[in-house]
Amino acid sequence: MKYSQLFGKPTKDTSKDATLISHQLLVKGGFIRESVAGRYFMLPLGMRVQNKIVDIIRREMDSVGAQEMISPVLHPIELWQETNRQNAGNFGLMTLADRRGAKFALGGTAEEMFVDVVRKFQLSYKDLPFNIYQFSQKFRDELRARGGLLRAREFLMKDAYSFDTDAQTFKKTYGQMADAYFKIFEKLGLKTKQVLADNGYIGGEYCHEFIVDSNVGESRYLETADDSYCAHEDVAEVKLEPINPDEKPLPMEVRDLPTDVTNMAKLATHFKQPKWRFLKNVVYKRQDTGQIVIATIRGDLTVNKTKLEKAIDAIELLDEATPEDLKTLDTKPGFVHSWGHQALYVADLSLKTVINFYGGQKTETTDTFNVNYGRDFKTEVEADIALAQAGHTNHQGKKLTEVKGIEVGNIFQLGTHYSSKMKGATYQAEDGQLKPYYMGCYGIGIGRTLATIVEKYHDEHGIIWPKSVAPFAVQLISLPGGEESAEQLYDQLIKQGTEVLWDDRDEPAGKKFAVADLIGAPVRLVVSQKTQDAVEWKARTSQKSQVLSKKEVLTKLLPQKVQ
Amino acid sequence: MKYSQLFGKPTKDTSKDATLISHQLLVKGGFIRESVAGRYFMLPLGMRVQNKIVDIIRREMDSVGAQEMISPVLHPIELWQETNRQNAGNFGLMTLADRRGAKFALGGTAEEMFVDVVRKFQLSYKDLPFNIYQFSQKFRDELRARGGLLRAREFLMKDAYSFDTDAQTFKKTYGQMADAYFKIFEKLGLKTKQVLADNGYIGGEYCHEFIVDSNVGESRYLETADDSYCAHEDVAEVKLEPINPDEKPLPMEVRDLPTDVTNMAKLATHFKQPKWRFLKNVVYKRQDTGQIVIATIRGDLTVNKTKLEKAIDAIELLDEATPEDLKTLDTKPGFVHSWGHQALYVADLSLKTVINFYGGQKTETTDTFNVNYGRDFKTEVEADIALAQAGHTNHQGKKLTEVKGIEVGNIFQLGTHYSSKMKGATYQAEDGQLKPYYMGCYGIGIGRTLATIVEKYHDEHGIIWPKSVAPFAVQLISLPGGEESAEQLYDQLIKQGTEVLWDDRDEPAGKKFAVADLIGAPVRLVVSQKTQDAVEWKARTSQKSQVLSKKEVLTKLLPQKVQ
Repeated sequence: MKYSQLFGKPTKDTSKDATLISHQLLVKGGFIRESVAGRYFMLPLGMRVQNKIVDIIRREMDSVGAQEMISPVLHPIELWQETNRQNAGNFGLMTLADRRGAKFALGGTAEEMFVDVVRKFQLSYKDLPFNIYQFSQKFRDELRARGGLLRAREFLMKDAYSFDTDAQTFKKTYGQMADAYFKIFEKLGLKTKQVLADNGYIGGEYCHEFIVDSNVGESRYLETADDSYCAHEDVAEVKLEPINPDEKPLPMEVRDLPTDVTNMAKLATHFKQPKWRFLKNVVYKRQDTGQIVIATIRGDLTVNKTKLEKAIDAIELLDEATPEDLKTLDTKPGFVHSWGHQALYVADLSLKTVINFYGGQKTETTDTFNVNYGRDFKTEVEADIALAQAGHTNHQGKKLTEVKGIEVGNIFQLGTHYSSKMKGATYQAEDGQLKPYYMGCYGIGIGRTLATIVEKYHDEHGIIWPKSVAPFAVQLISLPGGEESAEQLYDQLIKQGTEVLWDDRDEPAGKKFAVADLIGAPVRLVVSQKTQDAVEWKARTSQKSQVLSKKEVLTKLLPQKVQ
Repeated sequence: MKYSQLFGKPTKDTSKDATLISHQLLVKGGFIRESVAGRYFMLPLGMRVQNKIVDIIRREMDSVGAQEMISPVLHPIELWQETNRQNAGNFGLMTLADRRGAKFALGGTAEEMFVDVVRKFQLSYKDLPFNIYQFSQKFRDELRARGGLLRAREFLMKDAYSFDTDAQTFKKTYGQMADAYFKIFEKLGLKTKQVLADNGYIGGEYCHEFIVDSNVGESRYLETADDSYCAHEDVAEVKLEPINPDEKPLPMEVRDLPTDVTNMAKLATHFKQPKWRFLKNVVYKRQDTGQIVIATIRGDLTVNKTKLEKAIDAIELLDEATPEDLKTLDTKPGFVHSWGHQALYVADLSLKTVINFYGGQKTETTDTFNVNYGRDFKTEVEADIALAQAGHTNHQGKKLTEVKGIEVGNIFQLGTHYSSKMKGATYQAEDGQLKPYYMGCYGIGIGRTLATIVEKYHDEHGIIWPKSVAPFAVQLISLPGGEESAEQLYDQLIKQGTEVLWDDRDEPAGKKFAVADLIGAPVRLVVSQKTQDAVEWKARTSQKSQVLSKKEVLTKLLPQKVQ
């Protein structure tokens, strides 16, 4: 196509919120444009990339026998009520009613819808297994939407749902999808790790995220040096050894405390003790019941909210308590007790690794000392709720390191989580009995994947698209004296099916080169008076150019039938 | 693919509401499935057809230089307020708010969104013209949704928006799109007529519908025998000649009327007069202001609501008046006067074609006679608001015939209708001045097009897909003794890229033949003990079959590179 005719040309405008390089380059390059916060137009350049990503995913899904279909965007709210997911506030489900009063959810994920369509058919074991998927617009009512396509309120997603007879055949399906995901991301130029993760709101027993290492990613995971263990911080198990097993338990006592010792750092300094010596309390409130939850943990550790939510079956339901909430306990920040408040107490397993804790009953002038868990206090719930950190060891005793990355895909075992809750979600087994489907689900965020490619492939001048997803295979620049030759080459490229963007404007060379670098097609061609009937060829990744004949150029740019 | 693995197999279930053959066959054939009324899952078989329709449209749009992009589904309501379209109730706009209170419309059409993204760029005349389009889910809060994909509440639509500098260049764009539409529908196997239509809610000065003749269609249009005129009933002009020009106008008088003469038919019989002799009044109420509108027309004619709405600038705003509404005029059905009520009166031009009307001031026992429009009463508004009917003549004096059809696409001139209402929707002209874009928009309903193909291509056994959109090029049936041979043929077909559905089940031949006829792939192949290493070939459109070698079959089914 001719650059003069392109809608959505590169621009200097970029949103003030654009702190990420992918966000900046996609807006500046004319790939996307914000409608309102968190909602984006995919402009013609971006659409070309998106369509290629979609094609690659579709091809791999089809090649493992998955079948494309599509569900309505508006989900009858009754389906979400069947699985009791309609009120999980942190998920950001959007709802509306039509003028006859029927209520709908705007799909943020589609487990219920897919189970609903499947149960409309009376299936037998002979019809299973199958895997059905869609590309569809998804909605999440995020409170904050920053980062461009990395966390949008509306986004295109590939979501797949598999239906098996049992765990046995499901394992094959799950493995097949993991393999397909590695292939898909490899074709998109992304090196991914399959990371054990939390299934949270989706449910089921286990799941994995596909993560691309990146410092701007929101996924933090832990891995061992030998790659034998790789787990998201929300599920990474922390194996804690006793810290001072040889210390003699002393009787608990109340001692005076200077009034200016108000936080952990000051306590450690004041008592000349390491942080692990102290008890730490973190307070949450359940959105649904209003119940106050106090997590008690060793002073050197941090509570992981997701692990805590899972331990007390309050998935996506805990908010950090406000000072107002603390007032209902007759206390205030810094003065929460490790026992005695009207609250649900949860102890991290780390409380069992220390003899003679300091703290736990702080008042304005005193605190308790030589507190021993099990002897002096005990909580209703005990669980591993600690945030894993670099230097911790995993359950095999291997040292963990921390990695940050972007989650581009995920795969979930669902088992019978949905099919057992939804009425009639069964197939007739070989023995004639009706059994719930054994399910899995599998997502890839298209916009996030697109942005991740930009995070990985760019330089100071712009984007450097991998061939497989480049909006154009080649960008052709005509300079004075080369117009006719360029037009001839352009026509030939079009004729042989090569995707070419011809910068046909009457603008200085420097401006055209800058645009070519910003848009980032893999190859730049220049035709000018100087090149005569030949062409200057430069790869986007290279500093050097070479002069080739048109015939050579055309041959090198012949589109391959299969990418 | 193997039939045993297909999700969404043909079924005997069909909705009670399925009165249309396309609705019945698409549900029975396993192409679509209802979620709730008016909202459909596109099942894998239907998705294959839909993807082909999308590809054909995309290819033709791209070939005339249109550029694909996509807008968010949720439109900020402020944009709809800019053009004052947020309250047109009959259009069925759905709205919702997010948890921060921001309000959105669920797009039913996207003029405002596309103007909004275009105005974000500072464009000059050099950047124009361009035409941008999307495939996206659309929402209409229809009160009634019947007819399967022919009138759904949620549907996939291709909508395009063109931006030109002026009417001159726009004409070329408009013609180009009309040509592209003819090509698209021809490739889909549909013969369309370009029919002058009403632009209604969309606005602008003129528009055309692309209509496929069909008795189940909701579009009624009028045409001349020589095809020189073709117009939707909502815009078809009626040329009315004086009926009794030689009659002498008599003085108006009030006469007694028997109380049992209560409607037009009884009046005509009682007075032994043709229907045109009588005055007819039809009452409406404006949704926005509550104003009562009385349309007065010749007794043999019918009021066309759309023409009336246009005449008084109340697009999509008139409802038929209820008996309650008539009470506010101190009258009741059958007793509405042609003048004198507190209402806006609109006279059809037909009132000027009759001398000595009967009626106009009916009471329980009397009425007025020899009423002459202009002499005895005159309305505020006079306009052509009559429904054109077969036998009427158009403005050229040519006789009209009536045709019913399905509107599969439409093209609209918008001019500056949107760009003049929306702030900053301008480009810099060659003379440096800022001028509003000159626009057009162009829609194709994908689901409706799919259903229309079925309406046109089926027999009593099932669907007969045109090759260009068939879910599979061929359906292979293996009968006892032919399993191995079938598998071999299947593998070879897959290898050469032929789309094949292999009915690999252990079921009687009759059942498999019935399914093949229902699904409707263009070719059926049978392999059995009888055919040995050969294959029985039968076209879906033919009663006869022939035996061919596998080599011949493979050659005949080689996929063409370009359809």
